[in-house]
Amino acid sequence: MKKVAIILSGCGVNDGSEIHEAVLCLLHLTKQGASYQCFAPDKPQATTNHLTGTLDAGQQRNVLTEAARIARGEIKPLTELNVSDFDALLLPGGFGVAKNLSDFASQGTDMQLDAQVQAACKSFASARKPAGYCCIAPILIPRVYPAGVKGTIGTDTGTADAFIAMGGEHIGCAVTDVVEDTRYQVISTPAYMLAKNIAEADIGIGKLVKRLLEM
Amino acid sequence: MKKVAIILSGCGVNDGSEIHEAVLCLLHLTKQGASYQCFAPDKPQATTNHLTGTLDAGQQRNVLTEAARIARGEIKPLTELNVSDFDALLLPGGFGVAKNLSDFASQGTDMQLDAQVQAACKSFASARKPAGYCCIAPILIPRVYPAGVKGTIGTDTGTADAFIAMGGEHIGCAVTDVVEDTRYQVISTPAYMLAKNIAEADIGIGKLVKRLLEM
Repeated sequence: MKKVAIILSGCGVNDGSEIHEAVLCLLHLTKQGASYQCFAPDKPQATTNHLTGTLDAGQQRNVLTEAARIARGEIKPLTELNVSDFDALLLPGGFGVAKNLSDFASQGTDMQLDAQVQAACKSFASARKPAGYCCIAPILIPRVYPAGVKGTIGTDTGTADAFIAMGGEHIGCAVTDVVEDTRYQVISTPAYMLAKNIAEADIGIGKLVKRLLEM
Repeated sequence: MKKVAIILSGCGVNDGSEIHEAVLCLLHLTKQGASYQCFAPDKPQATTNHLTGTLDAGQQRNVLTEAARIARGEIKPLTELNVSDFDALLLPGGFGVAKNLSDFASQGTDMQLDAQVQAACKSFASARKPAGYCCIAPILIPRVYPAGVKGTIGTDTGTADAFIAMGGEHIGCAVTDVVEDTRYQVISTPAYMLAKNIAEADIGIGKLVKRLLEM
């Protein structure tokens, strides 16, 4: 049975992991016979009210504690992720990727990855173990892999331009498809960067998980 | 296209809607060609830290605002649910059902439903429109339908005894199956009352959604 490490970034599209994408990752891994362990950085996060879309300055939350909701409590701090324990890495999307796993939301192409996230992602790249990135998560790829690495965030030109400016080769991609860079064993899918509903995201994520486990 | 109203109870298995179940409900509805609208009661909730499993008294949260995370912001207060706008009703599980939609968690068989939840569920029962209840949500069924109504919470004898004590007829059921009471158009499935993983919950919920849309 293949073991996959999942990095979550909170719980909710606007300040954490996109919940549908995260659950679809868990679903497809399980249906395809893999096991998984969720991880998240143990650090504070800003909270967005998902009803109004506005920041809620009165809420003090923690990325690991909120991500535990998606993982039904079965989650570990990211410091405990050891690449040698896993066959592959998987990152669902959600703005938590741009706010908690990196500072892309505020810094754009000057983005830095959270140090623990950078160490974890680079450890899979160095070990030549496959890694899958969904939705906005592929924006991390140019900071993890060598210049020229291929990836997709769908068809959003602003985000694609940022991907290119950071050294990646951006490949336009339909929501139902994936982009692979077989040189580096890295694979990406647009998910809710393009999906008009959960069934569309499901197709691309299902395909990504299938290829991730085949690599 | 059939339209289904979904009542959420927050966001997270220990103090809200069970996230996997809620997402699987949305997934199967969409894949089977139905549309949906999520609703939740607009009221305060107690917060459980999902990493430690303990109450977090310092967190002030609201059921509707937290449920908005699962619905990606597309949610309405339960007061706006009008049965005439929908073909069916669907309630995922999670302890939010027993804490926010009712007081079953503290009152057991003396349970009362939240007044808005009671009104919404009874409106579908009175209109003879189908309703699906997942996981722990079927514990509400004996308070909504006449005595003798059939339902399942799986095989947990304590909860089954409570279902019976409140006037229901409890039918044991595998995680991959559903129990229907065709007299009242109400259907239930055990989901995470029994599921050992998300793929098991997926089978029962997929079957429940299929039958809900056929009824």
